Amino acid sequence: MVAHDLSPLESADIDMTVPDAEDPVFALHRGGKMAVSSTVELRDATDLSMAYTPGVARVCEAIAADPQLAHDYTWVSNTVAVVTDGTAVLGLGDIGPAASMPVMEGKAVLFKQFGGVDAVPIALDTTDVDEIVETVARLAPSFGGINLEDIAAPRCFEIERRLIERLDIPVFHDDQHGTAVVTLAALINAARLTDRDLDELKVVISGAGAAGVAIAKILRAAGVRKISVVDRSGVLVPERDDLTETKRWLADFCAPWASAGSCADALVGADVFIGVSGGTVPESAVAQMADDAIVFAMANPHPEVHPDVARRHARVVATGRSDFPNQINNVLVFPGIFRGALDVRATAISESMKLAAATALADLVGDEVREDYVIPSPFDPRVAQVVARAVTDTARREGLARRPY
Amino acid sequence: MVAHDLSPLESADIDMTVPDAEDPVFALHRGGKMAVSSTVELRDATDLSMAYTPGVARVCEAIAADPQLAHDYTWVSNTVAVVTDGTAVLGLGDIGPAASMPVMEGKAVLFKQFGGVDAVPIALDTTDVDEIVETVARLAPSFGGINLEDIAAPRCFEIERRLIERLDIPVFHDDQHGTAVVTLAALINAARLTDRDLDELKVVISGAGAAGVAIAKILRAAGVRKISVVDRSGVLVPERDDLTETKRWLADFCAPWASAGSCADALVGADVFIGVSGGTVPESAVAQMADDAIVFAMANPHPEVHPDVARRHARVVATGRSDFPNQINNVLVFPGIFRGALDVRATAISESMKLAAATALADLVGDEVREDYVIPSPFDPRVAQVVARAVTDTARREGLARRPY
Repeated sequence: MVAHDLSPLESADIDMTVPDAEDPVFALHRGGKMAVSSTVELRDATDLSMAYTPGVARVCEAIAADPQLAHDYTWVSNTVAVVTDGTAVLGLGDIGPAASMPVMEGKAVLFKQFGGVDAVPIALDTTDVDEIVETVARLAPSFGGINLEDIAAPRCFEIERRLIERLDIPVFHDDQHGTAVVTLAALINAARLTDRDLDELKVVISGAGAAGVAIAKILRAAGVRKISVVDRSGVLVPERDDLTETKRWLADFCAPWASAGSCADALVGADVFIGVSGGTVPESAVAQMADDAIVFAMANPHPEVHPDVARRHARVVATGRSDFPNQINNVLVFPGIFRGALDVRATAISESMKLAAATALADLVGDEVREDYVIPSPFDPRVAQVVARAVTDTARREGLARRPY
Repeated sequence: MVAHDLSPLESADIDMTVPDAEDPVFALHRGGKMAVSSTVELRDATDLSMAYTPGVARVCEAIAADPQLAHDYTWVSNTVAVVTDGTAVLGLGDIGPAASMPVMEGKAVLFKQFGGVDAVPIALDTTDVDEIVETVARLAPSFGGINLEDIAAPRCFEIERRLIERLDIPVFHDDQHGTAVVTLAALINAARLTDRDLDELKVVISGAGAAGVAIAKILRAAGVRKISVVDRSGVLVPERDDLTETKRWLADFCAPWASAGSCADALVGADVFIGVSGGTVPESAVAQMADDAIVFAMANPHPEVHPDVARRHARVVATGRSDFPNQINNVLVFPGIFRGALDVRATAISESMKLAAATALADLVGDEVREDYVIPSPFDPRVAQVVARAVTDTARREGLARRPY
């Protein structure tokens, strides 16, 4: 997710304490951050005979006769697997499954606190696309949804696509779609504040990974027509011969609007900069943007351009950081997305649900929109509710709700 | 497990209420029996920055440098996967993964209540041995141990063997070894009560499945020499030409002691009957057993011979039921086995650990042993502690403890 763009060096920068018992972060993590709890009491043999054998046998038989009853009589109805292969963890990259567990647990804790969703971290000891797809498909009966996390591009695209095709429960790659939804929500309000329509906006996206691809897609779906995506070598255009399959797709997706050049070239006269790259943008480039510029410098912990610098030239500045205004954070999205999807037993998370979630998130700010308030706080208790409602309403309308009442 | 031998017909017998909202068992199961809880507080952005990004990145880096630290700083250290393929659920048989979830959740609840172990139900949508082994091996980084559950014989034997070879965390098939350990514990006390040595006992085991095989093995390891195993067609002897690979192994294992004949023939003069078959044994056969006979009729809910009938001829009678004395129940074993294994980060559950656990369980009864008290109650709070202690002491002695302090 956006808030993940964090290199080892940078992570050392932000906290110089060494890993020891005195380190508050390590102390907090000792023993892990989550536990399993029982929701039934086992005081005596009678309790045992109901929660376990022999009583439980009748529940099993009922589900065997109607598998959908598993959603009524097991925790599957409220449980999501947070699945990673440990290849794109935060900005640390491919650190492997064991080292990814603290992030997956953190995600599970956020799922519970903000969405009331029971989430289980599943860190896989394989990076093979076929093996990941097969493994997750085999696990599926144990869960009500699958949240893919920190899987490197481009494998993440194929893994998500194949699992969506194969499973009848929601599959959602948060690094793509959570980031895209929260970014669109902030952009809707920034455009509202600066009195512009999305379809007029000239948008530059820095970063062509999972987040960049998903942001480009959702902005287009929301009506944005003028999108340029840049990588380290400049704007993605079909003429370039150094493009990966994903970047070639993006170049075609942004044609014919996007024209060759550097990031600085692209920013001349641009209305919006969206950084999901971890790179840097010089002040001189920001200064060349259009009036009322909108800068979302979401690299974390070091935004592509420091917000204080950006604010000299831009009207709306957002980051991925909690210590500046307008924090663009996936936690505003994934708990509510899955809360809503699980509540109606949605068979998938559709593009319409993502758009509805972004709109609902933007509308929560509504008329209170200000330069320093284009996106709600993660601790606004209404957030997950409105996102979930947008998802459930859309699921029912699209016929993707298995529980339409 | 023993308490599982329950056919659909029998399960209907024991409770005639139909599945509806008024049914207390279904009411108890609504929404499932477990949940995930956070062990850290997330009150504000500072908490978020420690439990999640950016702070969590340093914990990930530490584990990347030393993977064993995952046991210190994630919930892996206390978490077990309860893995099934849904092929041998209770006595219901192959009801599939979805229908097996209530049992796996029940198991997870027992793990937590009796052992303080966090357990996650993993019901797999495959019954292929290679696929199950591959899937569990890929999941392994997410867990501190693997409890295999309700997987049909003979596949359960190969799956367990291959996973033990492949993984450096404990892998334990409870239907085999939990049953075997608790049965041996009860037999040790029954022999003590009747003043006999294990190596003199003539034992008849009815049932040649996962439980029967494991019981035969652990009894032999404990010193029992005279073992006959019977299936529906009679005593397993090498001369029989109708034997599966497993039964042929058992026939060779019990040779030359075991002689051809019916279960009734085998019981003539036998000291011990151990039923894990779900079949029935006539009173006349029990009457032919030796003086001070020991009858463990563990089929559930319908013992192979009713305890009131067995008691007319046997001195010690045990069942799998909670409503008769001497309930032989795996819950006396698996929570303590994994509690101990996780506490010292054991790399495996050895045969010595199982023997030590059985002895410790038997010693808990000690001099209080009576005809109606050869095994402790599942609700005796000392049970998991003494079993865990036996496992940790043995693990240290055998050098299988990664945390030997």
